Amino acid sequence: MKHHVNFTPGPSQLFFTVPDHAREAFKTGIPSLSHRSKLFEEIVLETNSGLRELLNIPAGYEIYFTSSATEIWERLIQNLVEEKSFHFVNGSFSKRFYEIALQLNKRPLKWEVKEGEGFDGSEKIDQSTELIALTHNETSTGVSLPMSFIHQFRQQNPDALIAVDAVSSLPYPTFDFTKVDSVFFSVQKGFGLPAGLGVWIVNERCIAKAQQLLSKGMTIGSYHNIPTLKANAVKNQTPETPNVLGIYLLNQVVKDFLRRGIQTIRRETEYKAAILYQALDQHNLLNPFVKDKKFQSSTVIVADCQMHTERLTKHLQSKGLFPGDGYGTNKKTQLRFANFPAHSKEQFEFLVDSIAEFS
Amino acid sequence: MKHHVNFTPGPSQLFFTVPDHAREAFKTGIPSLSHRSKLFEEIVLETNSGLRELLNIPAGYEIYFTSSATEIWERLIQNLVEEKSFHFVNGSFSKRFYEIALQLNKRPLKWEVKEGEGFDGSEKIDQSTELIALTHNETSTGVSLPMSFIHQFRQQNPDALIAVDAVSSLPYPTFDFTKVDSVFFSVQKGFGLPAGLGVWIVNERCIAKAQQLLSKGMTIGSYHNIPTLKANAVKNQTPETPNVLGIYLLNQVVKDFLRRGIQTIRRETEYKAAILYQALDQHNLLNPFVKDKKFQSSTVIVADCQMHTERLTKHLQSKGLFPGDGYGTNKKTQLRFANFPAHSKEQFEFLVDSIAEFS
Repeated sequence: MKHHVNFTPGPSQLFFTVPDHAREAFKTGIPSLSHRSKLFEEIVLETNSGLRELLNIPAGYEIYFTSSATEIWERLIQNLVEEKSFHFVNGSFSKRFYEIALQLNKRPLKWEVKEGEGFDGSEKIDQSTELIALTHNETSTGVSLPMSFIHQFRQQNPDALIAVDAVSSLPYPTFDFTKVDSVFFSVQKGFGLPAGLGVWIVNERCIAKAQQLLSKGMTIGSYHNIPTLKANAVKNQTPETPNVLGIYLLNQVVKDFLRRGIQTIRRETEYKAAILYQALDQHNLLNPFVKDKKFQSSTVIVADCQMHTERLTKHLQSKGLFPGDGYGTNKKTQLRFANFPAHSKEQFEFLVDSIAEFS
Repeated sequence: MKHHVNFTPGPSQLFFTVPDHAREAFKTGIPSLSHRSKLFEEIVLETNSGLRELLNIPAGYEIYFTSSATEIWERLIQNLVEEKSFHFVNGSFSKRFYEIALQLNKRPLKWEVKEGEGFDGSEKIDQSTELIALTHNETSTGVSLPMSFIHQFRQQNPDALIAVDAVSSLPYPTFDFTKVDSVFFSVQKGFGLPAGLGVWIVNERCIAKAQQLLSKGMTIGSYHNIPTLKANAVKNQTPETPNVLGIYLLNQVVKDFLRRGIQTIRRETEYKAAILYQALDQHNLLNPFVKDKKFQSSTVIVADCQMHTERLTKHLQSKGLFPGDGYGTNKKTQLRFANFPAHSKEQFEFLVDSIAEFS
């Protein structure tokens, strides 16, 4: 295949081992594997163990598979909120999470800031809030919330559940799981896999809350409500026939990540982010869209390119480097660059050199 | 790979072209393809056109992608039922459809008969029923409902929506779409594909009903409610990042089926079913579980093997033929044989010879 690096923030570049893992899967009959078989249970068990090690997920937290992170937005509201969720909104995806709560006839509140901005900590959240919804990395704008911001809510709102959308940041961030109740992601971003699988981490407080809503006679969904997911997860199974191939591939990539080492992945992520932000800072025609360094995402880097957007896109594409468009109304003035484990240091160095020479 | 034919009713044997299509997909970057790209839209358009031709789906019926048929059970109840659905229950899967309506706090009714039986047409359905839920092929027992039975409800209950679960029968059956409002299936059965994709066909009456529930202030879900699915489908897109690889593979297999010809597929299905039922009828130790010929499924054939179950399984496995276990309480006394397009005439002839020599 021709040299071609996909920097779109998702679906993104596949991790380089994935095509071989897929070939092996077809060779060994994985796509025909029954989701009630011993071998499937072993794959689920291995995937869970691998994710626990990679992301340092403690005991008392369970891992469920869904079809997407979009589905998890819905399941999370459905299972964990009777009435009141509180959403930090600073872009299209955090907003969509809020809107799903509206669509499910809850009474969500939001604290909204302009695109490209973070939050200053002055937001007051009512003590009756059941769920605080945080988007660690706003894929539409490249704003990332500092860990200290995410971790402060446990103390401020001890009764609320704290849920973190880490769709376009994991496996990079290091969450303190004692400070969050649910974290979720989809595999086509940082894990470099084909789309079609979401991973939902919940703790016992989430499980208890879903049970509580159910015992009040509320509907919390059916096959993918938390009690049903849990009843199947204890057997290393899933309620429905899932994306078996997707789970198999996730297992393989998690093993590859563990072999490389999460610290190496994190260090490389920071190196790649640093050289790209530096290139944007130093460029005459380009700027980082996110000005405040403490909110600059390490995993989705957004360049403000204004009238040069189309020309820069063509320049990069001519070198086999495919940036993501700006999101929504910023489609014609910004470019987005995913910085995932699938993107090598060499590819980022070539990207940075190619940007530097653009004039 | 060693000769190995998977007769489990799903996930089942892959259609023989699928590994090559998957290889091509990885070679051409399909797993990294953006679901907002032109190429993705073209794939969706082609898949829809192919399915319309293959299944003779008329104008006025739309095709939506979900993650599984299990999801469609939920979405269907959520979008199309305010209170009353009526379910024909004759096994585990038709029962699960009914139970999902209960979990969504509707007031479903059911007409239930024993496993292995069909319905005699004496069932009266109240005219206030909003949705009649039919399972064309009960995968747990191998009972198939005659087309005449399915097609009668339009006249008897003109106001009700009629939904048909065709999970383990399509592409074999020929539905008269003027007599049904929604049909759905998942791809890991008759389409011989890896699991992780459901296909939901709905007509304008379904769309209008979902809109009506929404305008009453009811929640009909979020990203996969019918209005959102429709708004994306008109652009040949999906609301969320879907199983792009799964949709691509479905498109390729539908083209393969069209090349072979649906009439050929149907004729071969009937031939293969006939020789297997004959072998079971003529065998000293074995019987078809479904006695009444008019209810015998052509696509999932269940053998009543009693105390010979384990020995027959071993006998067949020694020849590379892998039957499916009986379902639920029938696990130790029955075997299930999928008869999908992926199963060739030659494989069925070998299966039948192997059963005939078993004693």
